[in-house]
Amino acid sequence: MTVRIGIVGGGQLARMMIGPAVEIGIEPRVLAEEPAMSAALAAVAVGDYRDLDTVLAFTRDVDVLTFDHEHVPQAVLRALVEAGVAVHPGPDALQYAQDKLVMRAGLDELGLPQPDWAAVTDAAGLQAFLDDHGGRAVVKTPRGGYDGKGVRVVSAGTEAADWFAALAEDANGGSLLVEELVDFTRELAQQVARRPSGQIAVYPVVETVQRGGVCAEVIAPAPRSAGRVADEAERIGVTVAEGLGVTGMLAVELFETADERVLVNELAMRPHNSGHWTQDGAVTSQFEQHLRAVADLPLGSTEPTAAWSAMINVLGGPAGAAMTDRLAQAMAEHPRAKIHTYGKAPRPGRKVGHVNVAGADLDDVVYEARAAAAAFD
Amino acid sequence: MTVRIGIVGGGQLARMMIGPAVEIGIEPRVLAEEPAMSAALAAVAVGDYRDLDTVLAFTRDVDVLTFDHEHVPQAVLRALVEAGVAVHPGPDALQYAQDKLVMRAGLDELGLPQPDWAAVTDAAGLQAFLDDHGGRAVVKTPRGGYDGKGVRVVSAGTEAADWFAALAEDANGGSLLVEELVDFTRELAQQVARRPSGQIAVYPVVETVQRGGVCAEVIAPAPRSAGRVADEAERIGVTVAEGLGVTGMLAVELFETADERVLVNELAMRPHNSGHWTQDGAVTSQFEQHLRAVADLPLGSTEPTAAWSAMINVLGGPAGAAMTDRLAQAMAEHPRAKIHTYGKAPRPGRKVGHVNVAGADLDDVVYEARAAAAAFD
Repeated sequence: MTVRIGIVGGGQLARMMIGPAVEIGIEPRVLAEEPAMSAALAAVAVGDYRDLDTVLAFTRDVDVLTFDHEHVPQAVLRALVEAGVAVHPGPDALQYAQDKLVMRAGLDELGLPQPDWAAVTDAAGLQAFLDDHGGRAVVKTPRGGYDGKGVRVVSAGTEAADWFAALAEDANGGSLLVEELVDFTRELAQQVARRPSGQIAVYPVVETVQRGGVCAEVIAPAPRSAGRVADEAERIGVTVAEGLGVTGMLAVELFETADERVLVNELAMRPHNSGHWTQDGAVTSQFEQHLRAVADLPLGSTEPTAAWSAMINVLGGPAGAAMTDRLAQAMAEHPRAKIHTYGKAPRPGRKVGHVNVAGADLDDVVYEARAAAAAFD
Repeated sequence: MTVRIGIVGGGQLARMMIGPAVEIGIEPRVLAEEPAMSAALAAVAVGDYRDLDTVLAFTRDVDVLTFDHEHVPQAVLRALVEAGVAVHPGPDALQYAQDKLVMRAGLDELGLPQPDWAAVTDAAGLQAFLDDHGGRAVVKTPRGGYDGKGVRVVSAGTEAADWFAALAEDANGGSLLVEELVDFTRELAQQVARRPSGQIAVYPVVETVQRGGVCAEVIAPAPRSAGRVADEAERIGVTVAEGLGVTGMLAVELFETADERVLVNELAMRPHNSGHWTQDGAVTSQFEQHLRAVADLPLGSTEPTAAWSAMINVLGGPAGAAMTDRLAQAMAEHPRAKIHTYGKAPRPGRKVGHVNVAGADLDDVVYEARAAAAAFD
């Protein structure tokens, strides 16, 4: 019997699971928000993932349910589990990726290194935190943020007034998360895969470069990370995966500080932008690995296939230049670049694809990947 | 505009184009013979590729037409071209892959090295060829053979009586091909991609091992081929691609003889079993390359990503053991093996998948690939 995996969400992460699924004999089915999304090639049902009946109906023909995003409400997730659906990652794990306050509390319980943080409910609380932390801090909405949205650096308790007001109007109520502004030297990401039966596979820690809150570049493995930094990143990744009961792919976004500490920034429980390099630079891509993990199949090797890999995101340009208009140019000038497109309309700043290059020389690899991605500008 | 490529034939070659197509932003559509074929994941029309109206209707929504097999009749191909459909490879090239007598004559015209051959119409003609070639020869039906079918070693003119009789009954009439029995030391395959606009990309020559007329193993590059053998294989591949006007992927199956000659055995104008290693061992897989070539997009690098790659076919076993029953075992024991499944019922001897392993040490790579494939036995 072919394993059928249902994927909630029709974005590029679901899309990039399709190829690997076909190869290892898994049948992917997608519950998309709209008909013409990135993952439209696979068998697609269209419906609202917040509606239990819709998701339940979708799960009738699948063996395992997994996700392209982390937005399925806890109530829906828990009802699915109660109805006997195999959900990976499950609601107990996903809550830590869905709510940054829950995440911070969970990481404290695991004793993992992270920025100082607090839950604040008003300007006075925020000001008190600022006073204790040098007058500047990062405020985050606990839910719904992504790619820099829902994140703001503030230096006065009044600068999050709009968010406090929105929280007050929200029937769920709640707090904002405020975090110490970490003086980091660079950002890293640690990816780990974990099966329901417990097997874990660890990818090399990578360096990520963000621009405007959006992941712009990834270098794998992170240069000058061998030894202490890589060991600490791996320890954190494995502790999170096991401690929070994550199944499937986990990405732990990390800060490396000037005093050589490694602190947890964010968690994602799905294939992640920081792992796209694995498509062309590791024995097992994060997309195949996620499918193996959620289906509880043995995990593949995470070994890199080249000394260095670089991933550069392709964003939609202001002129709305079509992806395909530039595809031939990028291919002609960069025959070693692996181009991945998401089948999306290229709105300004929107991730519409990425380029991977793998090879023996770090400078060459980064140069080539940047140049190929620039051909889409 | 996304390029839409129509693929005639719903087998594993079409299936393995799906993943790469998605990544580079090409929309694949498949005209399958039956609904539940290997490539059923893509948008599938079901119909008879021998029927012009069926194929014409299928081409209405595609920009380029290509193939999973070489069986579309010349009359249909030529009518498509006349109707303005971009067909790659086109009928002029495909005739050399469809008819082995046409191929032998074409290769002679190009002055390429090949076994002695003749077209014979009866037992007397076959016996005359045998008398001139040491009493043994290979007889082949010019059309419709594959995986060792339609090939027979004979030592008497009477041993092809059934085939002569069948030819006589065939409205098209015709001859059998008889070839000198080549005393080869091993078999090689040379893959070349060519765009309609002329660009060519050459893969390293590989060694192929056949068992019972079916490709069993491929090692890339062919051990001890660097220098004269590789150069000659490349020269032959490029000459065939340019001389016969091939577009898309071309595989030239070759004999290497004890006296170090390289002779052309067969041609295939599509992705080929001898190129499956490129999925996990080259920068650009033959499936992505075929799509780029037929869409007249710039070709990708054919550079290997590892020193050695091995490909082992997985055949259906006598007990009809399901592919997926053994999948978990192969994955558990061989985390570095890349497993590719075709979604086919595992009838005895039928190709139902393959395993690729790439790495630095030839012995390790071959051992690992064989062991992983054996887990499916």
